[in-house]
Amino acid sequence: MMRSAEQPGGDESGAGRPVITLLTDFGSTDYFVPAVKGVILSINPEARLIDLTHEVPAHDIAAGSFILGASYGYYPPRTIHLAVVDPGVGSTRRAIVVATPQALFVAPDNGLLTGVYDNEPEYQVYDIGERWRAAYLRRTISPTFHGRDLFAPVAAWLSRGLPPAELGELVSDPVRLPRPPAGQGIHESAGQLTGQLVGQIIHIDRYGNGVTSLGLSQLPFATAAECGLEVAGQPISLICRYFSEAAGSTEPFAYPGSAGYWEIGCWCDSAARRLGIQRGAVVLVPGRPVGAEQ
Amino acid sequence: MMRSAEQPGGDESGAGRPVITLLTDFGSTDYFVPAVKGVILSINPEARLIDLTHEVPAHDIAAGSFILGASYGYYPPRTIHLAVVDPGVGSTRRAIVVATPQALFVAPDNGLLTGVYDNEPEYQVYDIGERWRAAYLRRTISPTFHGRDLFAPVAAWLSRGLPPAELGELVSDPVRLPRPPAGQGIHESAGQLTGQLVGQIIHIDRYGNGVTSLGLSQLPFATAAECGLEVAGQPISLICRYFSEAAGSTEPFAYPGSAGYWEIGCWCDSAARRLGIQRGAVVLVPGRPVGAEQ
Amino acid sequence: MMRSAEQPGGDESGAGRPVITLLTDFGSTDYFVPAVKGVILSINPEARLIDLTHEVPAHDIAAGSFILGASYGYYPPRTIHLAVVDPGVGSTRRAIVVATPQALFVAPDNGLLTGVYDNEPEYQVYDIGERWRAAYLRRTISPTFHGRDLFAPVAAWLSRGLPPAELGELVSDPVRLPRPPAGQGIHESAGQLTGQLVGQIIHIDRYGNGVTSLGLSQLPFATAAECGLEVAGQPISLICRYFSEAAGSTEPFAYPGSAGYWEIGCWCDSAARRLGIQRGAVVLVPGRPVGAEQ
Repeated sequence: MMRSAEQPGGDESGAGRPVITLLTDFGSTDYFVPAVKGVILSINPEARLIDLTHEVPAHDIAAGSFILGASYGYYPPRTIHLAVVDPGVGSTRRAIVVATPQALFVAPDNGLLTGVYDNEPEYQVYDIGERWRAAYLRRTISPTFHGRDLFAPVAAWLSRGLPPAELGELVSDPVRLPRPPAGQGIHESAGQLTGQLVGQIIHIDRYGNGVTSLGLSQLPFATAAECGLEVAGQPISLICRYFSEAAGSTEPFAYPGSAGYWEIGCWCDSAARRLGIQRGAVVLVPGRPVGAEQ
Repeated sequence: MMRSAEQPGGDESGAGRPVITLLTDFGSTDYFVPAVKGVILSINPEARLIDLTHEVPAHDIAAGSFILGASYGYYPPRTIHLAVVDPGVGSTRRAIVVATPQALFVAPDNGLLTGVYDNEPEYQVYDIGERWRAAYLRRTISPTFHGRDLFAPVAAWLSRGLPPAELGELVSDPVRLPRPPAGQGIHESAGQLTGQLVGQIIHIDRYGNGVTSLGLSQLPFATAAECGLEVAGQPISLICRYFSEAAGSTEPFAYPGSAGYWEIGCWCDSAARRLGIQRGAVVLVPGRPVGAEQ
Repeated sequence: MMRSAEQPGGDESGAGRPVITLLTDFGSTDYFVPAVKGVILSINPEARLIDLTHEVPAHDIAAGSFILGASYGYYPPRTIHLAVVDPGVGSTRRAIVVATPQALFVAPDNGLLTGVYDNEPEYQVYDIGERWRAAYLRRTISPTFHGRDLFAPVAAWLSRGLPPAELGELVSDPVRLPRPPAGQGIHESAGQLTGQLVGQIIHIDRYGNGVTSLGLSQLPFATAAECGLEVAGQPISLICRYFSEAAGSTEPFAYPGSAGYWEIGCWCDSAARRLGIQRGAVVLVPGRPVGAEQ
């Protein structure tokens, strides 16, 4: 029982029962999430279940990857993250467990963990093999609901201390989503941006704010304030530090977002609706020629 | 410590605190669910609350029954399921507790537990009586919110070990919903379906898949593949084992669903929208005359 | 047993791990709620997280205040309520902790706790000061996400026993929302209402019922039954004790609601849609002149 030796979660310090987070596109109106939770609790009654979200748009692997990538880092060490957005369920796509020094992830191998790979310097990927499935899974696996019949049991057994290496073989080629463009054409020299910084909208949040692919370290506040942005061809010249700096203005503005990217908002309104943009919209930071006068 | 004497959930094995699941049509935007949870935790701080769903369509007892019926079986023994879809709240409809060998259910007696009765060979139904109410409930019961003022306290007290028989009298006539048609006209002989197998759509899930009333054991895969289905008069000739078998096709297809019924899907689209169907749509499996050539 | 020494929540009664409730306008589709929960669990793995709602309409402080005010009273003593509807995040609006004899509240000082102030005879308000922030918060505080970077850590530390007085100075002028009109012009004498009782719709629930600002003690059932109500100029003459008393009727009706206010409903339909009303609609109880014949 490696886990009880390794971590407080299982030992006498009582520092807390194992946390399993859930991220899916199952929605909140069906038996999918309830069944997954029941399966986990039946295997490990001590598990603590935390919903990240079940409202990932149906089949939208990129959206799931973004939300997971922006969330998991806040969880305590040894949290197990169960993520299921799985249009390929039942096909030959692999089912994997990813181990980082801090956490474990259980997911289909379809790019859903890209937000993890992008953040982590070190991780191992295990293919959940037939041998383990045959030994541990009692029910027939429905070819349309691996969330319940495969991923949930895996997460539950991991939370009981199963070492990931017992699940199956290491693999070195997990599926990754293509990176959104972020930074092509950028040349910064002596505080000046030359050429264009090119990105795109990678997420629209519930307020209608658009999250861009441009990182805060990539585009310093002063540069943004000087150059402004363009989103889907529309100039954004108001650059704010927080929302209510734009109070009273009806103009969309850019601000440093809490996920580490520049975002586009609109005071008490939806910037996405105002600008008519969706995920994928092109974001530009117009630069100036090297040596041009300021 | 009545509970620890009575049941393993509370004993020294540490097998976990009592689980209470919640299924309602209260939605997620009001004080209804928060109040119910607070009442439970005030009576039993050890209770573990698991949301099944609160998004049962308003007043839709049949939808609640379907989701509960497809979910509860995955939960650990001695789970308490609190289910409230209750358009008759305040009237003379009974409030009941149903005990099975594995679980307890607390609900209005309006058919919401039909999915339980259909699955369970053995159960007892108790009418929550006035005597118990007078003894245990401190507040006036609002005639519009039994979820908070009656069902939540009952579930909480059950989770503390209250034997269901102390709640009130056994009754033998709980309200059941009519069964959806499933199988009328079926005659299978030597692997051949004769006459028509008649069912209906009993649920549309969040992906737009339609769950039929036709069970997987009632309609074997080979028969479905041979005969095809008709949904609301529209033929379904593509029969798949899992979603991505239909990848690239824009045609709706039938597949064995994870709740034990045949379902109708459409690759990365909503079958319900494509077919223009709602719950209640007629599903047919056209058979062939006995003795007809194959 | 560090906890039992530190705080009442963990005392020898074994009354359970500390409960932290969450009420926000973050929605269920983003990384906001997941990040908040992760931060709390990282600071206090023993915390029990209970979602009140995350579906407060974006930036709608009054709606959040209503739901919190109608919910928190059902929770066990020492519950910590974390409430974040925060259009002014990043500005100079204060961040506060409110202590009542029963509970603690963590919120922006923008009126979100009005529903608490209205109910509680006694409470203290602490301004979360710079000194505490500097000592306890490790990360830079994002000017757009105090929910994650400030309020969540405060709630978590309170759940570990931090006395609220250590957070900062007492303040005496927390922001309150204006009270909705409720009762202007009322004169009741010998059971008779003279003049008009004036209120408004303060909430529309998920069923489309309209909650009025008229309290049940302010407008007795018999008076309502005699005088009827007017909502947005439309007369409501059917007064019921519970929903199914109106079964079969298509007419909107008034009934004593479970939050302590008169409500307007419609049998298996949305009263709000039927009457074309929104929050803020005027509610009248027409009275009669003193001494008028009955």
